[in-house]
Amino acid sequence: MVEFGKEFRKKYFSLLEEDITPLNHGSYGLTPTPVMDAYKKAAENHEHYPDEFYMISAHDEYVKQLKTIGDYLNIKYNNIAFVTNATTGVNTVLRSIPFDFKKDRALFHSTTYGACGNVVRYLHDYHGLEYDVVDLQYPLTDDEVIALFEEKLSTKQYKICMFDMISSMPGVKVPYERLIKLCKKYNTWSLIDGAHAAGMCDMSFIDKLEPDFLTTNLHKWLFVPKSCGLLYVNPKHHKMIQTFPVSWSYKCDEENSEINDDNIMIEKFWFYGTAAYPHIHATSAAIEFRRDVCGGESKIREYQIQLKEKAIKSIKEILGSDAELLDNAEKTLAVPGLFDISFPIEKKYVKVIDDMEKDEKNYLNFKAFSHKHMIEKYKTYAPTIYHNGKLWLRFSVNVYNSEDDYKEPIHLLKKAINESLEHFL
Amino acid sequence: MVEFGKEFRKKYFSLLEEDITPLNHGSYGLTPTPVMDAYKKAAENHEHYPDEFYMISAHDEYVKQLKTIGDYLNIKYNNIAFVTNATTGVNTVLRSIPFDFKKDRALFHSTTYGACGNVVRYLHDYHGLEYDVVDLQYPLTDDEVIALFEEKLSTKQYKICMFDMISSMPGVKVPYERLIKLCKKYNTWSLIDGAHAAGMCDMSFIDKLEPDFLTTNLHKWLFVPKSCGLLYVNPKHHKMIQTFPVSWSYKCDEENSEINDDNIMIEKFWFYGTAAYPHIHATSAAIEFRRDVCGGESKIREYQIQLKEKAIKSIKEILGSDAELLDNAEKTLAVPGLFDISFPIEKKYVKVIDDMEKDEKNYLNFKAFSHKHMIEKYKTYAPTIYHNGKLWLRFSVNVYNSEDDYKEPIHLLKKAINESLEHFL
Repeated sequence: MVEFGKEFRKKYFSLLEEDITPLNHGSYGLTPTPVMDAYKKAAENHEHYPDEFYMISAHDEYVKQLKTIGDYLNIKYNNIAFVTNATTGVNTVLRSIPFDFKKDRALFHSTTYGACGNVVRYLHDYHGLEYDVVDLQYPLTDDEVIALFEEKLSTKQYKICMFDMISSMPGVKVPYERLIKLCKKYNTWSLIDGAHAAGMCDMSFIDKLEPDFLTTNLHKWLFVPKSCGLLYVNPKHHKMIQTFPVSWSYKCDEENSEINDDNIMIEKFWFYGTAAYPHIHATSAAIEFRRDVCGGESKIREYQIQLKEKAIKSIKEILGSDAELLDNAEKTLAVPGLFDISFPIEKKYVKVIDDMEKDEKNYLNFKAFSHKHMIEKYKTYAPTIYHNGKLWLRFSVNVYNSEDDYKEPIHLLKKAINESLEHFL
Repeated sequence: MVEFGKEFRKKYFSLLEEDITPLNHGSYGLTPTPVMDAYKKAAENHEHYPDEFYMISAHDEYVKQLKTIGDYLNIKYNNIAFVTNATTGVNTVLRSIPFDFKKDRALFHSTTYGACGNVVRYLHDYHGLEYDVVDLQYPLTDDEVIALFEEKLSTKQYKICMFDMISSMPGVKVPYERLIKLCKKYNTWSLIDGAHAAGMCDMSFIDKLEPDFLTTNLHKWLFVPKSCGLLYVNPKHHKMIQTFPVSWSYKCDEENSEINDDNIMIEKFWFYGTAAYPHIHATSAAIEFRRDVCGGESKIREYQIQLKEKAIKSIKEILGSDAELLDNAEKTLAVPGLFDISFPIEKKYVKVIDDMEKDEKNYLNFKAFSHKHMIEKYKTYAPTIYHNGKLWLRFSVNVYNSEDDYKEPIHLLKKAINESLEHFL
């Protein structure tokens, strides 16, 4: 077996350009070449006999892949559906709820993924749904996060509360199990954005804790080709949930009643319009890759966690003594593949950071410039975030990374960030 | 140059299984092998350097492809956006409208594509939007269609009217240019489902007549790989329209104002979530195929129309003297690639047809059985529809079809349908 790291990258992530250092799995994922081959083959399968494919094979293939992913993640397959990505999962839920826009209220947190927060903003701007935002300024302990949510939830004015399993920016773990219970306590539906979850977290809590809704990407940490995510829906909402887009399989109350309760999700989601489904059909290839080639989830995470420790040490050394890892005293913000390190600001650039504090637009301009600069000039990239008064870099760790990725490339990133700060001086 | 027909199929539609007869381009389209190759290459491009792809190249590539398709179809590129398919286009529009659900009303017609009708049903069931349906029983003249719509529209109670360019089942042309004008006359927004339009109709009327919204598939008659459609939005609605799903690019009124008016559609639609975009990037390959390999749109349509005439003659001969082409006296229902022929019912099966008339479920059961039977047993397929008291078969004609496709395979279809009728006796 090829060991994780350089040789593994060379053999199994061979589509990646040789001269780049991939430190940002967190944003777009990366597909192993054998999985990509399965994807291309599946795409061609559509074309062999389209009538047979769409009208006969597609249903069974969908169920087969659903069972495979359900088994692998330990979630009952009748309660899940494939969706394009987690953002689409969030749209699917929030736009399947027959809100009483005059009365209902939603809650989410300030570190919610921008796209998902926008769905609530859209419902507010277009239909009048009211909402509140829990402000999270990291580092925070789990108790502090829970207390901030409880302060709001205990007012019992929320129909639904949306929260992350692992936030994107900064990349930190959220106490999602406790939040599910908290929502239940205050009779609020939970909608969990697990965009970074599958492939980093044990998902078997879902069937135990039974949240209302949960969505995860499969094309990010689980190596399924894009565009692929999963949506879990608590059985009590199977009749309410509709596909996104609404299509042939739309079911009103009466039509729902004609289907065996166990099959409602499948009958709605297996086909909702002529589209390409190769990502769904390549899901089993991704699972085989993780199980057989990588040796399973625990082996993958073990490697990530070990390499992460070395990476943190190396990055802090390179960025300077003020660089700090984002975590709390109990170390509960940590996840296997993502971590954030603050970027020490030289005295001459403090003004640029102060400008970011004054106006978010200044940060956004810096972000646009620095991201392009890192990618184009230095062939490596770590997303930046201005959070709680500091500039942070988010790094990823995966099976194709090795210690060297966090040495010389970090010098380049440091240079790129300082050059970008200089640009805005 | 290879001539259209058998040799053309063999060379350019080589993914198609050899022993099937493709008579149903209308449902799922079919992708030429060189275009599929471009698609696979584009899918791999995502993986070479994802940060560079999504954060730098993707925007320019999107605009490039948008300009290419806009040029080819003669539509201003600033007013269009790529969408998954026409059903998603319809969802995008109907769910971007801040309806006053207490007051607003929608109109569509009985032959509307089921998935699109369902979007209005969803808005009714979940939010209370009222709607009416224009009942169309073909054959009808254009004047008759217009009169039926005007009867409703002249009441001036509709916010929006959704209608087809070419209906799917039965496959007939709708007088869409006159309907656009009629909507304007009665101050009703027009939403046009042109699912079958691009690749069969001249689309240059859009910029002249300026409907409110129009969507078309590109992955059907235009040979773009799935999942690919286009959405036209009249400039006066660019600020209102939002992507589907709502994502990063959501713009409220204030944010819309910060963008140059010409770029609103592009800035919203170029990226709305991590997803695979190879279909968009293969659009130019499909256009090259139609222009360079096929010799252009008029050559394609000329072939379709000529072959269609021969096909109709042959099919009528095989199905029997009662078989009739669905058209009106002015022959304005005809389109280049689709036609419907009634299936003559033997006396002993009349009861089965009568049962369909009594209860739609009987037709749906027959449909499910007969479609599977045709596809699996006889390796050819034409969708059936029970419409206006008759059972119709819808046939497609494309550049990979030849006269022979409408000879022996029609005997097989006749057998399959009669065996299916026998099954329900």
